Amino acid sequence: MTNSMVVKKFEKIVGKDNVLSEREDCYPYSFDVVEQGQDVRVPDIVVLPENKLQVQEIVRFAAQQNIPIVARGAGTNQVGSCIPSRNGIVMHFSKMKSIIEIDENNLNCTVQPGVIVGDLQKEVESRGLFFPPDPSSLAVSTIGGAIAQSASGSRHFKYGGTRDYVIDLEVVTADGEIIHTSSKTQKNVAGYNLTQLFVGSEGTLGIITEATLKLIPKPDVRRILLAFFDDLKDSARAVEAIIRHRLRPCVIDLLDEKTIETIEDFSHSGIFRSAEACLIIEVDGTEIDVADQIQKINNVCGDYNVSEIKIAQNQEESDKIWFARRQAFSAVTRLNFDVVAEDLVVPPSKLVEMVRKIQEISRKYDINIAIMGHSGDGNLHPHFSLDLRDEEQKHRYQLAELEMLDYAATLGGTITGEHGVGVVKKPHMTLVNDESNLKFMRMIKQVFDPKNIFNPEKIL
Amino acid sequence: MTNSMVVKKFEKIVGKDNVLSEREDCYPYSFDVVEQGQDVRVPDIVVLPENKLQVQEIVRFAAQQNIPIVARGAGTNQVGSCIPSRNGIVMHFSKMKSIIEIDENNLNCTVQPGVIVGDLQKEVESRGLFFPPDPSSLAVSTIGGAIAQSASGSRHFKYGGTRDYVIDLEVVTADGEIIHTSSKTQKNVAGYNLTQLFVGSEGTLGIITEATLKLIPKPDVRRILLAFFDDLKDSARAVEAIIRHRLRPCVIDLLDEKTIETIEDFSHSGIFRSAEACLIIEVDGTEIDVADQIQKINNVCGDYNVSEIKIAQNQEESDKIWFARRQAFSAVTRLNFDVVAEDLVVPPSKLVEMVRKIQEISRKYDINIAIMGHSGDGNLHPHFSLDLRDEEQKHRYQLAELEMLDYAATLGGTITGEHGVGVVKKPHMTLVNDESNLKFMRMIKQVFDPKNIFNPEKIL
Repeated sequence: MTNSMVVKKFEKIVGKDNVLSEREDCYPYSFDVVEQGQDVRVPDIVVLPENKLQVQEIVRFAAQQNIPIVARGAGTNQVGSCIPSRNGIVMHFSKMKSIIEIDENNLNCTVQPGVIVGDLQKEVESRGLFFPPDPSSLAVSTIGGAIAQSASGSRHFKYGGTRDYVIDLEVVTADGEIIHTSSKTQKNVAGYNLTQLFVGSEGTLGIITEATLKLIPKPDVRRILLAFFDDLKDSARAVEAIIRHRLRPCVIDLLDEKTIETIEDFSHSGIFRSAEACLIIEVDGTEIDVADQIQKINNVCGDYNVSEIKIAQNQEESDKIWFARRQAFSAVTRLNFDVVAEDLVVPPSKLVEMVRKIQEISRKYDINIAIMGHSGDGNLHPHFSLDLRDEEQKHRYQLAELEMLDYAATLGGTITGEHGVGVVKKPHMTLVNDESNLKFMRMIKQVFDPKNIFNPEKIL
Repeated sequence: MTNSMVVKKFEKIVGKDNVLSEREDCYPYSFDVVEQGQDVRVPDIVVLPENKLQVQEIVRFAAQQNIPIVARGAGTNQVGSCIPSRNGIVMHFSKMKSIIEIDENNLNCTVQPGVIVGDLQKEVESRGLFFPPDPSSLAVSTIGGAIAQSASGSRHFKYGGTRDYVIDLEVVTADGEIIHTSSKTQKNVAGYNLTQLFVGSEGTLGIITEATLKLIPKPDVRRILLAFFDDLKDSARAVEAIIRHRLRPCVIDLLDEKTIETIEDFSHSGIFRSAEACLIIEVDGTEIDVADQIQKINNVCGDYNVSEIKIAQNQEESDKIWFARRQAFSAVTRLNFDVVAEDLVVPPSKLVEMVRKIQEISRKYDINIAIMGHSGDGNLHPHFSLDLRDEEQKHRYQLAELEMLDYAATLGGTITGEHGVGVVKKPHMTLVNDESNLKFMRMIKQVFDPKNIFNPEKIL
């Protein structure tokens, strides 16, 4: 079947306006936020379904014709999960972005995959409810993408990630059935946990067309404390002490010197000052509890040679800090032609070791690396700033990346905490998965997608 | 191979003392806490491994000889998950009950499957940490069983269940490999979520030999409020109002009149008094927050015609209430020859409808049913009190059960929230899973256990 016949078929399903097939229209869908010098694969067709029945019809047709389908939200992924590895179609969810229901009596909401995470948060928070997962990209990234990638963010330390809030998924399977993985209740153990198989499966097992998410009551207040340290080691010891003192901030993010400077250069927030490390600590809860925790955290930081503490005095100041923090990636992109935001996890007690290793790798391979991350979870995002068009630099980067991920694995950590595997981390899967695990994963893929039409060549 | 040859082989692996093969020694392993008039299948052999390498050797041998293996903890299961459906061996974990490590710096612990849930809780709480999942059987039931069944309990409303605390599992697979499903870090998205596939799989996919569990800081204080209502509907409206007011108790359990009377008759606690419904509401957190929430809950109950409120004044009173509450199952067993503790879930907003339906069913089929449950999650445990030796009664019970579960499914609920499927709920799986789901589950079973040696004939 020729491409134009496929286009005609899709136009019949979703309407002419919802099918793109000109190369220049499809080109933007051959990237995520990091290009990393990969081969560009422009999709043959981009299709924008408006409802689940259209998704079902497209999947049935694609399966019959062996056409690969890559589901895509806002394209903020950093490991190539949402871009085609082969030609085929990209299914873009920008037209399925309804919040179908916010069920205040049963503490859940049901949404289409194209809903923007930040929009959902605003909507539920306006009703006194809370959806905690907060990927840095939340102003543009979609809930479908967050589920597919098992995204989390700064608040994971207290609240967990997207996967902890997914109750039920509606999925179009490879044989074109529409299934629900569970019920809309908070508890359900009637069979294997299909829900959590689809969460984090990066679109390789089925297409999510609807999700029911758990909501919790919104904390009364939030407050941010910034702690600057002249010695990175002190900041890590402060993180450990906060954990050891059984304090429970929602966020304990760490920024190294390079990150602090880069963010401040970019945002001119006037908030960040030069220091070897800065902790962004956010506490939420009741007014009294927050005041109490802030005081205790203040004291703990004092025990570890903090050089300065700033406490946000109001929402505006907090917003300013978050805005600057969430621009970290954009800020680093200004430093060079490319930026690669890495993602690794180590036990929090190994943070100093890991950061020192990254700094050593930075010197050894002569690559600028800005380190930031969610230190309470031991989840670091070293941002490599370089020019990947330069083959020699690219080679150095690859060696540096491997050495870094290998070291994280050696410390009992892992190669990705929230960005996913996609194509970028695929070669490193064996660092943390032995052959049996990979064999099971390949067989699971085979169970759900025997013809390999869903996002082929990703993860495995 | 004869049974005595198998016994010899096992004795070589685990030692003579750790193998039972006389029928009278094996007989106790042919029951869980509810017999439900099933055919009794006495295991041929009971083996008690002392470490993972012994488990591995047993599995390898059993796989080679096609001998079914049923893993068993304390046997507190209520759906037949831990008893053999065919002959074969029971692997009892009473000799693998070490708390291997409590890692206070990284907020996790690593345990063997035979550790008793209550013991683990006491141990971590003595260090200011908290493992919230609290099945009623926690004084005797094991963590391996809790993971296999995805058990939860009263505190699920605020804290989630066992599955929300499992970080990593060590599993002996059907081909005798020892795998880790993840890393010991709080975040890991390097591949499909194998961990959550094993959680709740009831021993059908592999044998868990070690688990790493997430811990959180222990709340400063807990306090219980008991609210008695003369009208069940008022109690349910109070539950809804508590949720609507964004309050966050850790427990909102509901007891109906029959349960209250039965518990009080049994425990002589002097706490419970006659009423159509009683809510057991527990709040935890900081001293001030708890006082504030108790006050607000008190007010909400007042809005819905509460007839009496009792607030536990100290730990001793709280303990007494929990002791009585957790004896509910034992209390009901005194009423008749058999008791069947059912387990279903509906959206909390459908509680009244569901309870009224159960009462109607009780009258229609002339069976005594005591209703209790975790109303905040919509998870009810109607306890059927009857004599299953009487075929006619058994038939009535089966009709009543089906009608009840079918109604729960119709309300958007499910057939089990925390007890599991085992053999008892197997015939009802189609009420909440369509054919595609069951097909996927069967294929997943095939992936992990192609020779069907792990707990055959359960779930599917």
